[in-house]
Amino acid sequence: MEQKKIDEYIKMGRDMLHLKIDMEDYQSDQQLHKPQPPLSKPATSDRIIDLPRNFDDLHINGNLTDLLIKRKSNRVYTQKNISLLQLSYLLWGCQGVKGIRGKSYATLRTVPSGGARHPFETYMMVQYVDGLDQGMYHYLPLTHQIEYLGAVDDLFNTIDATLVNQTWAAKASLVFYFSCVPYRNEWRYGIASHGPILIDLGHVGENVYLCATALGLGTCGLGAYDGELANQLFKLDGWDEFIVYAQPVGTINIDNTADEDAFYSFVKEQGW
Amino acid sequence: MEQKKIDEYIKMGRDMLHLKIDMEDYQSDQQLHKPQPPLSKPATSDRIIDLPRNFDDLHINGNLTDLLIKRKSNRVYTQKNISLLQLSYLLWGCQGVKGIRGKSYATLRTVPSGGARHPFETYMMVQYVDGLDQGMYHYLPLTHQIEYLGAVDDLFNTIDATLVNQTWAAKASLVFYFSCVPYRNEWRYGIASHGPILIDLGHVGENVYLCATALGLGTCGLGAYDGELANQLFKLDGWDEFIVYAQPVGTINIDNTADEDAFYSFVKEQGW
Repeated sequence: MEQKKIDEYIKMGRDMLHLKIDMEDYQSDQQLHKPQPPLSKPATSDRIIDLPRNFDDLHINGNLTDLLIKRKSNRVYTQKNISLLQLSYLLWGCQGVKGIRGKSYATLRTVPSGGARHPFETYMMVQYVDGLDQGMYHYLPLTHQIEYLGAVDDLFNTIDATLVNQTWAAKASLVFYFSCVPYRNEWRYGIASHGPILIDLGHVGENVYLCATALGLGTCGLGAYDGELANQLFKLDGWDEFIVYAQPVGTINIDNTADEDAFYSFVKEQGW
Repeated sequence: MEQKKIDEYIKMGRDMLHLKIDMEDYQSDQQLHKPQPPLSKPATSDRIIDLPRNFDDLHINGNLTDLLIKRKSNRVYTQKNISLLQLSYLLWGCQGVKGIRGKSYATLRTVPSGGARHPFETYMMVQYVDGLDQGMYHYLPLTHQIEYLGAVDDLFNTIDATLVNQTWAAKASLVFYFSCVPYRNEWRYGIASHGPILIDLGHVGENVYLCATALGLGTCGLGAYDGELANQLFKLDGWDEFIVYAQPVGTINIDNTADEDAFYSFVKEQGW
């Protein structure tokens, strides 16, 4: 790539980090009193599964200090089942609804979102969860349910392809695919919506990390995924809704430090 | 603003959320074996303060479930002092270093960061913290210390100005200003660095939320701040390092729900 092109990308990227758009003569759709979009995407399937909420039965111990010490990225999954209650906790902890503001102005969730816009939908490829058929699911946060979207041919290899052949990640019990519905934010913040959406995405990812850690499971946020393939699988149009993040969660063996460390062998090899 | 311009901004913003750059013929500086930048910005002041680490004395109770239930944005601060140990916990929880990978390849912190690049520096405007002079500080994560950068004329109004006159936020005991040093990520990820930096910023903000909640303090992530003014105050050049986020933390009165709710009176007024 030519240096001039690289410099342009770097300039564009850095500008994006502290994006300042002159909003003087701009009004968002909220300011124009246009109707706001739905708080959450409704179910499209007739196979809906209630998620258990008896989180006390998970016996989550340890305070935040312990969790922050323990939290790390895990990349070696042992391909065992997690329970439906564990999955329920992960979903509640990263996108669960605690209340509604106004008649239907905003959801208040377990995770913060600028202006309580909560622009994400949560999809899953499930491999090893007690009581669930393998395949695709979608979380319904308003009722704390999931809907089954159907089976997938050659599930493991399909997951692997969506994760651009990070095969270690495809061994997870399930993979979360978070989509973004940008108009939920654009309705309120218009052209200044997009940087804050990525910050919100980090809030979600960190809660997945902390919930997985509390459950004794492993996870790793993924920067690389095939968004177009994931959009196609979950039937998202790529404009009004599209996948923005993938995060596997799997069972781990905490004594298995050698295989985990092998992911960083390049550090020693390169003398860094 | 003309609709054509608005449409362009929306397109650019949505594209940014799932940025795909053709990296085929691109090599990052890491791939080119260029030296990596320092893991953290060294101290520039000779007034360095050790932070206490006796976190057990904070008696942080409750498990993650309780914290996720309690976490909310607080906007009414009671302008009381927090302890140095509380400040120490907040800093450790959002940027604290748990270890080093390789000789000096990466810091492993209490918060995740893509490729463990950790592109942030933490600055503070301190108003009400036991034992600290009012003024500007910078966190030194490698040694868990802070350095005093000096006093600020008319501190309250200066903070208020950096927060674009969100005067409620200027009543915080302190305000965190997170800067970004983009080359820490660009060294490894080059032109694909910038979206992941914003996601990392959300990891940091969520940990501030959870630590503040665990300490019984209030916080609120701020989308609006005057980055140029903040850069000037903390002597950042705006290109190699610049402020990307502001987050106040203050003392609260948990019974003060009426004043908190007043921030949302528009919801009822507009019939939403």
